[in-house]
Amino acid sequence: MSTFGKLFRVTTYGESHCKSVGCIVDGVPPGMSLTEADIQPQLTRRRPGQSKLSTPRDEKDRVEIQSGTEFGKTLGTPIAMMIKNEDQRPHDYSDMDKFPRPSHADFTYSEKYGIKASSGGGRASARETIGRVASGAIAEKFLAQNSNVEIVAFVTQIGEIKMNRDSFDPEFQHLLNTITREKVDSMGPIRCPDASVAGLMVKEIEKYRGNKDSIGGVVTCVVRNLPTGLGEPCFDKLEAMLAHAMLSIPASKGFEIGSGFQGVSVPGSKHNDPFYFEKETNRLRTKTNNSGGVQGGISNGENIYFSVPFKSVATISQEQKTATYDGEEGILAAKGRHDPAVTPRAIPIVEAMTALVLADALLIQKARDFSRSVVH
Amino acid sequence: MSTFGKLFRVTTYGESHCKSVGCIVDGVPPGMSLTEADIQPQLTRRRPGQSKLSTPRDEKDRVEIQSGTEFGKTLGTPIAMMIKNEDQRPHDYSDMDKFPRPSHADFTYSEKYGIKASSGGGRASARETIGRVASGAIAEKFLAQNSNVEIVAFVTQIGEIKMNRDSFDPEFQHLLNTITREKVDSMGPIRCPDASVAGLMVKEIEKYRGNKDSIGGVVTCVVRNLPTGLGEPCFDKLEAMLAHAMLSIPASKGFEIGSGFQGVSVPGSKHNDPFYFEKETNRLRTKTNNSGGVQGGISNGENIYFSVPFKSVATISQEQKTATYDGEEGILAAKGRHDPAVTPRAIPIVEAMTALVLADALLIQKARDFSRSVVH
Amino acid sequence: MSTFGKLFRVTTYGESHCKSVGCIVDGVPPGMSLTEADIQPQLTRRRPGQSKLSTPRDEKDRVEIQSGTEFGKTLGTPIAMMIKNEDQRPHDYSDMDKFPRPSHADFTYSEKYGIKASSGGGRASARETIGRVASGAIAEKFLAQNSNVEIVAFVTQIGEIKMNRDSFDPEFQHLLNTITREKVDSMGPIRCPDASVAGLMVKEIEKYRGNKDSIGGVVTCVVRNLPTGLGEPCFDKLEAMLAHAMLSIPASKGFEIGSGFQGVSVPGSKHNDPFYFEKETNRLRTKTNNSGGVQGGISNGENIYFSVPFKSVATISQEQKTATYDGEEGILAAKGRHDPAVTPRAIPIVEAMTALVLADALLIQKARDFSRSVVH
Amino acid sequence: MSTFGKLFRVTTYGESHCKSVGCIVDGVPPGMSLTEADIQPQLTRRRPGQSKLSTPRDEKDRVEIQSGTEFGKTLGTPIAMMIKNEDQRPHDYSDMDKFPRPSHADFTYSEKYGIKASSGGGRASARETIGRVASGAIAEKFLAQNSNVEIVAFVTQIGEIKMNRDSFDPEFQHLLNTITREKVDSMGPIRCPDASVAGLMVKEIEKYRGNKDSIGGVVTCVVRNLPTGLGEPCFDKLEAMLAHAMLSIPASKGFEIGSGFQGVSVPGSKHNDPFYFEKETNRLRTKTNNSGGVQGGISNGENIYFSVPFKSVATISQEQKTATYDGEEGILAAKGRHDPAVTPRAIPIVEAMTALVLADALLIQKARDFSRSVVH
Repeated sequence: MSTFGKLFRVTTYGESHCKSVGCIVDGVPPGMSLTEADIQPQLTRRRPGQSKLSTPRDEKDRVEIQSGTEFGKTLGTPIAMMIKNEDQRPHDYSDMDKFPRPSHADFTYSEKYGIKASSGGGRASARETIGRVASGAIAEKFLAQNSNVEIVAFVTQIGEIKMNRDSFDPEFQHLLNTITREKVDSMGPIRCPDASVAGLMVKEIEKYRGNKDSIGGVVTCVVRNLPTGLGEPCFDKLEAMLAHAMLSIPASKGFEIGSGFQGVSVPGSKHNDPFYFEKETNRLRTKTNNSGGVQGGISNGENIYFSVPFKSVATISQEQKTATYDGEEGILAAKGRHDPAVTPRAIPIVEAMTALVLADALLIQKARDFSRSVVH
Repeated sequence: MSTFGKLFRVTTYGESHCKSVGCIVDGVPPGMSLTEADIQPQLTRRRPGQSKLSTPRDEKDRVEIQSGTEFGKTLGTPIAMMIKNEDQRPHDYSDMDKFPRPSHADFTYSEKYGIKASSGGGRASARETIGRVASGAIAEKFLAQNSNVEIVAFVTQIGEIKMNRDSFDPEFQHLLNTITREKVDSMGPIRCPDASVAGLMVKEIEKYRGNKDSIGGVVTCVVRNLPTGLGEPCFDKLEAMLAHAMLSIPASKGFEIGSGFQGVSVPGSKHNDPFYFEKETNRLRTKTNNSGGVQGGISNGENIYFSVPFKSVATISQEQKTATYDGEEGILAAKGRHDPAVTPRAIPIVEAMTALVLADALLIQKARDFSRSVVH
Repeated sequence: MSTFGKLFRVTTYGESHCKSVGCIVDGVPPGMSLTEADIQPQLTRRRPGQSKLSTPRDEKDRVEIQSGTEFGKTLGTPIAMMIKNEDQRPHDYSDMDKFPRPSHADFTYSEKYGIKASSGGGRASARETIGRVASGAIAEKFLAQNSNVEIVAFVTQIGEIKMNRDSFDPEFQHLLNTITREKVDSMGPIRCPDASVAGLMVKEIEKYRGNKDSIGGVVTCVVRNLPTGLGEPCFDKLEAMLAHAMLSIPASKGFEIGSGFQGVSVPGSKHNDPFYFEKETNRLRTKTNNSGGVQGGISNGENIYFSVPFKSVATISQEQKTATYDGEEGILAAKGRHDPAVTPRAIPIVEAMTALVLADALLIQKARDFSRSVVH
Repeated sequence: MSTFGKLFRVTTYGESHCKSVGCIVDGVPPGMSLTEADIQPQLTRRRPGQSKLSTPRDEKDRVEIQSGTEFGKTLGTPIAMMIKNEDQRPHDYSDMDKFPRPSHADFTYSEKYGIKASSGGGRASARETIGRVASGAIAEKFLAQNSNVEIVAFVTQIGEIKMNRDSFDPEFQHLLNTITREKVDSMGPIRCPDASVAGLMVKEIEKYRGNKDSIGGVVTCVVRNLPTGLGEPCFDKLEAMLAHAMLSIPASKGFEIGSGFQGVSVPGSKHNDPFYFEKETNRLRTKTNNSGGVQGGISNGENIYFSVPFKSVATISQEQKTATYDGEEGILAAKGRHDPAVTPRAIPIVEAMTALVLADALLIQKARDFSRSVVH
């Protein structure tokens, strides 16, 4: 369905060719200052061709708050947001529409809904993610005001080109402690914070662009300053909710938290994160963080970090031998110019979905905290 | 929370030292033949020390259906199942209990619930999964009767020892087409279907056992004969629900579907799954299946397959330098013998959670199917 | 929260002074013809001062579909609808705002959200119901196409003036069998189908208008042609969902189905609805319908009918002795003209909420129907 | 479905002839003292033939906690409870089973599930309510520890015999302020606190018993000491959740809160509850309470009170002319002795469902409270 979350809950709508896309966010704390200026920056980062947080000159994808605020403060009531579509006409059916695009959602939407609509597949397209990003910006503001929670996503792989994301490497852990959105955006549209690798990634993308082909990548995300105790055993573990959120993003094919797939070959004696007492903060910390900030499905106060692979874009202008809906063999070549690598644009979407999961988990845990404080 | 699913919904209960563990399964189809004999085999596969489906001589972990059936048929009402615990006494607090076990849930449960209970951590333990396996067996029977859906999980990695799980390799795809539970169990407790690798895996485990250490692994799972159209855009994509389910299993640290992390470095021209018409079945198929059976969050009728990494067991009898709850440094060494590798025992749990996701998605899609059949 | 329903699910937004009000409807069947013309009539019926279905000349409260349709057909994706607010400015704080209006939501919203906003209380106002009516119109169209389901609500009481709604009276049962929206609207804005009573009701209202006072009333609603089997034991019985829906309407104070409160003094021997076989339809019917179309929480194929009391409007221009938020005694007299009786305007809201409950229950039951058809 | 609640959530199971009935309660506060002794009294009050809280000598319907506590304290994990059934054998099909009992759930269960099971209808029977009562007792303990919340239900009508429940009468409001369970139970099994009426009620019941007939009644319930702010606009208003809960109880046919149906004929000037400042408690109170403790769907700190009508028992031993499932006319007369009036036994069920609604609403509101405290 198009609703996500229990107490902090977003419902999105919209596809490529309808009048607008947007969302309703329910459960936003009352009394929080909120205007479009809080939301627009992440929407702008999501736009094709945008790179810097600081220069949103592009007037497109402008968010308009419809409800839920008054004099710049939230009321506690649902916040509806709307972003107009530029191209509101469903396109004419062309020859190309006879073909379900390979590895795109055309075929499965047709199977599910019995409809081959120009807008139908659009719900599976990147434009659907606008409502996520808009609502995530609100969740982020709440989290930041609660305990200065910081969420930073960045590109760690494009095709074969990887930067270090070895959870057992102190340098990577240091980067997780220090990386900022400013640093990520300072690298330009590639959004990889490792300057030595970022250039190679750009070249990798250009290679595939030249071939009318596409290439995938990996986004890594870190969350800092999250309180302990978030996540609900046993089915709604924090990492389960994060995985749910990440796999709901178009083109994502996986999720790993902490040491992830790499960690399975590291023995417990090395993988375990031993405790120590940190005097400055007067609390138990772990010396390493191979767990990725969760144990038993509950946040432990260390950095949460995880990675998400995004497959190569399905729509390419190279010719593909495939079949029509009717089963006839033929050659499909998508018209127009297509972005060969969308991974960098997934950054604000990953951040938004992360914020939505955490805001909801925080509200739920605060109800639990309260309940244990009154009983005996 | 302890409830999973919308129309086919399971709620579980129980920890290590309480009277029983079990579950309530709501939304089971009425009129389906069902007795304990349908459920016990997977519970028996889940038991420590068990290997073969065919010899459930062990009388432990016996399931008792409490409600929802009459004369061996389901009534459509909730099916409660109970499995008695053998050790029902909360253990005495010992010296070891001063320490939260590194990378275990002791510390986070304490933070969340304010309780250091012997049973508290038990909700994070493997015993919690019994209710999942019992309910999954019912979901499986429904899926099998619907369209002969087959779900088979197997071990593809232990520590550094991997068998082939390259989605671009036709041999691996052939294995996905043909692997059975019988084949998996025929390899003994290691549950790796590649005989050449299985032996090495056993040795790998023995090495860590000798060191009082532990090691992780990867489980891969395939689903065959699933209808098209399952999965609900945009937040409840089929892969999102599967990821949610898998990351809710204790000790799992990730999820990848289809080509997963590997696929990001394969260009779209090779990664895309082109269509062809299969005369025998009179439907569109894809020539390759790098997508893993889903496109746009909806099943496309091809095999669903995915992998899940399980970290090394946190409880080891090797000494660990760590801190007590009170922040004092000390040495913790778990008493008793501990299983150095639980990955093979995760097999029936992965299968069960998969079945729960699919049964729910199937019911929801059938409501959608109906709705489109009556409107115009 | 602002979301209602499981498979057919509406989320609403908006208060009195924000930019717009509206909703997102998820789970609408794909392939259904749908334009604004399907939705506007009920919105127009909801408007103050409107009476007839046939003359929607008023250009206010115009609905705009934002998404989910193409070429006049639904896509299966969420349908967002927006209705602009005319007065988008939060009003200036006046002397009157020092007082929480007695029996209005001002005080409780202030307690819940910590905010005394002009728009805050607006979420509790009638304007919030626009999104309900818009989404209900879609649900109604689906139900009508499924099995010609008809939903008709009408006024059966204003103040002391009642028309016959005795479930044991065959005349009332006949009215339930035959009443139409056209008949209801033909009586003018009072919407009471009994001509002899309607005139008295109008006079009753005028009496209170003259006194700067207000008066309540009762709405009765009937549903015809609903299939059997709808409703989910045990917590989501059909009547429980209907009661939930009705008590969520502003100013409603109750709900009764079938014989309701009256029925408790009628012995079982008379209250029970005996069965007979109806040859024309080849099915079991009941001779009487004191149950109101449900037994054990499940629809039995007879007419569903129920009544909902609406209290007297809280905002009156008569002076009221009360206290300010700060606890000072004082006199409050609401400015402006106020509608002395809103019960007739509740008609399309009651119909809409009924349709939302039934559309959701129908989808769920069709999933159950399917499930029992494949198992053995 | 068989699950109720969002954060404080109960799932029930069981019918008349299965092994046991029971429930799983999720979201119980950790660290609360809890044993079977907290739960048994309400279960005993629910038993047929029981009257007094103080003499639970009957050893039947004994609850056993299965999980979620240790050393008499809750762990925060799910609490499973089981109550064994005495008659675990599905009964043999008899001649009587050819008939769906009029106004019972036999026919609708058959339509919904396609099954005519002896236990099937049992899910619609009173035995299903055991799990509700058991879980409600836990909710009550939490509410009592939070703010001394008191929930007292009592019989206000049997057949034509009514006690005063006029919300505009100060005597009735005084009774709501002072009534206790001890007082209710002191009147014997009739559970009507008005001694002058209670005797007539008993006679009324005996009259119908003599006729092999049955009679209905009304239960009124009051909640004292509930905090302000509970209830979630707009669909999950507190009264909407209460109505949902009450209409989910078998045989209930309605709900009214505050002045209810009676109030519609009282003008706003009299119906409105004006505010005053109460020095002792330092808060705004209302002089009257015609609203029944809620305004705009949110608790205002006054007593919550509502009434629920229960229809005459459907199963009577008088002969009834009806039809078989196959449509043949015939005479049905239920065998055995049947309780002519179950309304008094509904008391603990009404209290339990009330507690479940309030515990959930309290947890949710505390999350909201928290959220507004951290933002600016």
